[in-house]
Amino acid sequence: MQKEGERLDDLQFEGLKILQNPKGFCFGTDAVLLSHFVTLKKGDRAVDLGTGTGIVPILLAGRSKDITVTGLEIQESAAEMARRSMELNRLTTRVSVITGDIREWRAVLGTTRYTLVLSNPPYKKAGSGQANPTDGKAIARHEIMCTLEDILAAAAGLLIPGGRFAMVHRPERLMDILLRMRAAMLEPKRIRLVHPRLGTPPSLVLVEGVYQGRTALHWQPPLFIYDAAGAYTEEMRAIYHIGAAERDI
Amino acid sequence: MQKEGERLDDLQFEGLKILQNPKGFCFGTDAVLLSHFVTLKKGDRAVDLGTGTGIVPILLAGRSKDITVTGLEIQESAAEMARRSMELNRLTTRVSVITGDIREWRAVLGTTRYTLVLSNPPYKKAGSGQANPTDGKAIARHEIMCTLEDILAAAAGLLIPGGRFAMVHRPERLMDILLRMRAAMLEPKRIRLVHPRLGTPPSLVLVEGVYQGRTALHWQPPLFIYDAAGAYTEEMRAIYHIGAAERDI
Repeated sequence: MQKEGERLDDLQFEGLKILQNPKGFCFGTDAVLLSHFVTLKKGDRAVDLGTGTGIVPILLAGRSKDITVTGLEIQESAAEMARRSMELNRLTTRVSVITGDIREWRAVLGTTRYTLVLSNPPYKKAGSGQANPTDGKAIARHEIMCTLEDILAAAAGLLIPGGRFAMVHRPERLMDILLRMRAAMLEPKRIRLVHPRLGTPPSLVLVEGVYQGRTALHWQPPLFIYDAAGAYTEEMRAIYHIGAAERDI
Repeated sequence: MQKEGERLDDLQFEGLKILQNPKGFCFGTDAVLLSHFVTLKKGDRAVDLGTGTGIVPILLAGRSKDITVTGLEIQESAAEMARRSMELNRLTTRVSVITGDIREWRAVLGTTRYTLVLSNPPYKKAGSGQANPTDGKAIARHEIMCTLEDILAAAAGLLIPGGRFAMVHRPERLMDILLRMRAAMLEPKRIRLVHPRLGTPPSLVLVEGVYQGRTALHWQPPLFIYDAAGAYTEEMRAIYHIGAAERDI
């Protein structure tokens, strides 16, 4: 299952593992926070737009056995590795990974409608300091292959009315995000800001909207990643399931 | 100076005082936080839209001796009391209080242009649970005499290009606030959320925009009002200048 140069990481959660290539794009805190933040309902049919190595589908499948997830990824090398991770985790009946372009969502995913769309998209504008636009890491970080608008258009097209859209992004883009979500009829409903530590500005924003939902914005308490001593906060330890084994004893 | 039924409160800051009528609308934490949050520049000509008892102009005048402030208030009883507070504080050369309607800003304030506009406006929609629409407290709390749009239109009309607009409001309205600020060309630049305590959703949002400014949203660290023991946090004590006397010794 594991190819040369790949690493098999234990997610310390429900026995789940993930294949990653240390030379390629590896998942970060943002993907873990998004998977933890999103509202899951029994029977959800979810799509993860730009799934990369499949971290979000794996964590969602770990959170609930009553959902199916489709990961869409434009880079075949990442998608192929993600498919092997699903096999390793025996998730192939619940998670599928499709190679395809988010902008071609209609052709790639057909006329199926979903109850949930997620995305941990590239945060940076194309051309803003990236080295090589054909590089896999650059594609994951910069809006080279898809922009925020592309993702919102795909989400609105893929969701049933009342379906949820959840995303993690940069707080500096929040104006754009809220404006464009509303324009795409993905009405923002729930927001949480993530701060490195107490007394610092937010570094990430988690937002959930509802397709054709009514106006009602709910703020959640801020999430702090590190405490004053530089260790994970209690909430982050719970999200990462750190100490779960000790608690189970 | 002090009329029957009125109270003279010591602001514990620069020797400043304010007249209030306990039966009317008394200032809250929001006005203090707004006065502390706003960027002040030497030579600022500021307008406070809906100044009430004049708390914001008094605190601004206390922060800087190099600014002038005009308070606009629709309720003559509050405006008249505010004028007496300015006399008590010997601020009449720097602060003026005008009785008038925010919607009539052009007629009331003429063609003067300002470098700064502030507002601690009514937060609640008209008709949402208010008792008596002619009551002074209801006018201060509900959008009876002016809406968010009225305030933003007045601010945009009163500011020079590059002038600042600062407001305190409810986080539930942030979508509307950001959308309408941008529509009024008051580009949001700086945001701070205020939380009652750690682990709670925000109860207030402080936002500053620039008239005809370019897009660039900066988030500040969250502000917490109370600590775990229910006492003011260190930052709130500093904002309220509590303990300043002890520190000076």
